[in-house]
Amino acid sequence: MAPAPSTRSYQLIWATPFAIFAHLLAIAVTTLVLVLLLHFREGFAFKADNKQKIFNLHPFLMVIGLILIGGEAIMAYKTVPGERSTRRGVHLILHAIALTAGILGIYIIFKFHHETGTTDMQSSHSWLGIITISLYALQWVLGFFTYFFPRAEKTARATLLPWHTFVGMVIFLVAVVTAETGLALLIGSAPLNSEGYIMNFTGLLILLYAISVSLTVILPRRY
Amino acid sequence: MAPAPSTRSYQLIWATPFAIFAHLLAIAVTTLVLVLLLHFREGFAFKADNKQKIFNLHPFLMVIGLILIGGEAIMAYKTVPGERSTRRGVHLILHAIALTAGILGIYIIFKFHHETGTTDMQSSHSWLGIITISLYALQWVLGFFTYFFPRAEKTARATLLPWHTFVGMVIFLVAVVTAETGLALLIGSAPLNSEGYIMNFTGLLILLYAISVSLTVILPRRY
Repeated sequence: MAPAPSTRSYQLIWATPFAIFAHLLAIAVTTLVLVLLLHFREGFAFKADNKQKIFNLHPFLMVIGLILIGGEAIMAYKTVPGERSTRRGVHLILHAIALTAGILGIYIIFKFHHETGTTDMQSSHSWLGIITISLYALQWVLGFFTYFFPRAEKTARATLLPWHTFVGMVIFLVAVVTAETGLALLIGSAPLNSEGYIMNFTGLLILLYAISVSLTVILPRRY
Repeated sequence: MAPAPSTRSYQLIWATPFAIFAHLLAIAVTTLVLVLLLHFREGFAFKADNKQKIFNLHPFLMVIGLILIGGEAIMAYKTVPGERSTRRGVHLILHAIALTAGILGIYIIFKFHHETGTTDMQSSHSWLGIITISLYALQWVLGFFTYFFPRAEKTARATLLPWHTFVGMVIFLVAVVTAETGLALLIGSAPLNSEGYIMNFTGLLILLYAISVSLTVILPRRY
């Protein structure tokens, strides 16, 4: 039987280099997304006659908010120095920020559809997105009650932990799948110009970020 | 520190129910894909004036070949009865079938582009697909040499195994991401008709299949 990946099996390889790589990818993705939205597209606005500016808030909040900050939240147990309670606090707060960005991002796209007279919830991207945000919120609330306040008993917390981790990783990866479908729809199949190349590379770097976050979760922290 | 998911931590929960669920999902996805391609679209053909028939071979080979058979290959160590060498053989052969289907699927789409005068390699879907098939082939060849013939030494095999598993899972999940972007492009954002609903649900079931395969890999086999 192939043993499942376990902390023990990846001997002498630590999470740190992959966490650093993930941070660098987060900076790169942020840069590319800002170049795309500010330079190639029309920039941001919450209210505007140019509806493209409203739309642009959606990928901004989803990629930089939900995915990059969500990924940093996931890695907090391997990256934040200090007490375990500090790491738990950072994990909780970063996820709250990511979730808020995600909810705002969904609000924005409904607002954009409303103002441009587009029907909601038609694409597979929209279905995946609604599922992601619902599961993300549910996971956050369950995590809050189980691990923060009022907190489950020690044995229950320990029993639930691998499931909290697994379900959390699944939700994170479904969020990444959703982002990739969104990017695919934006890029379409038109001949590639500079903007298209940057979009394609943004998609690849987001995927690399997801892989690095996963490795950081699987590999042990060096004490 | 949050412990990484390890076989030990998921006490008393076995891979079997998730593997069975994955098999059922594979049957459901196969059914939906066939309904889509045979009933709603034009069916299959390798040579045809109706180029849609050629295109249809692409999602057929990719979803049923690369992803579903690839997933079954991944689960073979948890699902196939008998000797370890039997399981290894099934794992190897199913992956060879999946890889062949994947290479054929890529050939078909280039052929379709060629016959319809479309530029290749423009979408993020195409980039992800080329990356997936390259890594899949590389992983198969490396796995063959390491675990089948001429085989690495026992300690090297054991050291490499968690990486073989992790990298294999990453490639499988990137294949799933690619399929979801392909489906998203096919569905687009047009108002949903019956075909659109079936496509969206196909996308969701493929995602559920990927999650079930992942759980089957992580959870221990019951002896």
